[in-house]
Amino acid sequence: MTFYTLHYQAFCPFSRQIRLMAKEKNLDISLLEEKITHPSTSLMEKNPTGTLPVLVVDPGIVVVQEYAIIEYMVETRDHFALLGNKGVLRNEVRRLIHWFNGVFYLDVVWQIFHEKIIKTIKKQGYPQRDTLKRGGILLHQHLCYVASLCNKNNWLAGGPSLSMADLVAASHLSCLDYMGEISWESYPAVKEWYVRIKSRPSFQPFLRERIPGFPPHALYQELDF
Amino acid sequence: MTFYTLHYQAFCPFSRQIRLMAKEKNLDISLLEEKITHPSTSLMEKNPTGTLPVLVVDPGIVVVQEYAIIEYMVETRDHFALLGNKGVLRNEVRRLIHWFNGVFYLDVVWQIFHEKIIKTIKKQGYPQRDTLKRGGILLHQHLCYVASLCNKNNWLAGGPSLSMADLVAASHLSCLDYMGEISWESYPAVKEWYVRIKSRPSFQPFLRERIPGFPPHALYQELDF
Repeated sequence: MTFYTLHYQAFCPFSRQIRLMAKEKNLDISLLEEKITHPSTSLMEKNPTGTLPVLVVDPGIVVVQEYAIIEYMVETRDHFALLGNKGVLRNEVRRLIHWFNGVFYLDVVWQIFHEKIIKTIKKQGYPQRDTLKRGGILLHQHLCYVASLCNKNNWLAGGPSLSMADLVAASHLSCLDYMGEISWESYPAVKEWYVRIKSRPSFQPFLRERIPGFPPHALYQELDF
Repeated sequence: MTFYTLHYQAFCPFSRQIRLMAKEKNLDISLLEEKITHPSTSLMEKNPTGTLPVLVVDPGIVVVQEYAIIEYMVETRDHFALLGNKGVLRNEVRRLIHWFNGVFYLDVVWQIFHEKIIKTIKKQGYPQRDTLKRGGILLHQHLCYVASLCNKNNWLAGGPSLSMADLVAASHLSCLDYMGEISWESYPAVKEWYVRIKSRPSFQPFLRERIPGFPPHALYQELDF
């Protein structure tokens, strides 16, 4: 029996994608919540750079960040990793993981979520209007791209079933959705895909999580939104 | 016989790390250079987001971005991928790849190289003093962290030989070194490690590459710098 423990933050999209993966595969993972303001001593011992998520695999294997965690799962328990078959499909899943965790996160989640929420929590000043505006423009551009994927296939990477690409995408969109940043009616194909993800049991814990001082928008918990 | 073609830019660190991997393993890859100002039609057909690197594996398999390329190589030709043995070492290699391609790139390479060179080439305005200053401070902090790794082991991930972590690190540092941004004498352990990387045959093509209008610093080509 292998025991897994995950250092995470509730609204860290990189932590959320690992939590989604675990729940989808009924993999029992203990959760250790980290504060946004400062990493715990236990986290710093395992990852001196203090970033999340960090997975501890009993006895004593430490796997740092979503890239290493996802690929570690492929190598140790292939069917849990949701990467699809090797070759063309898996390349596409990884391309989309990279795009959401790199481009989409930096262009949009960082600019909007970080600017409006993390900066306030960390007392790093007021949200900058220019940054939010740029984030909003890029959110629209990128959702048009996601819509083009949703219009072609049921699942983002084009495989026969849900993959890690869908979970990674959902981890970022769920943080933006909490804030009411997404005009779902403008992207019906993306909304239809998100409704399917949002209805899954793996997603339900997110609907109950809250950021103190920042309540979710009115329809956040609704499946018919 | 498998044929590989790589869409790349000379000073794109993500392209450089794949070129280093190929040269280290004597893997024959044809190179297709992309302009900094706009992606080619051929690239856009293969990767609609226009980002680099893109590897085309004959016949017709397209692998987009360094994450998918590195892991594709692991799955198809394990010994070429330089990820070390599965388990603890490989987790550490991947942790460092993620750190250099994520944290180090965004904190330093983006802030300095992009601000001073790419912005000018793309006519996006003057370098911002604040951005460069922040990049410089983070460069120092991060090189202290790299020095702590170099002080412990010959190779960054702590394995018995060079790994992809060293090549990824070198791909970023080589771009900063071209500009003379690194005060090597302040980080003797990092310098000693970099001298070993810079002396390798796989690195030599970089010493001949130039950015029009931006000559390298005086000692860029020297192995004794």
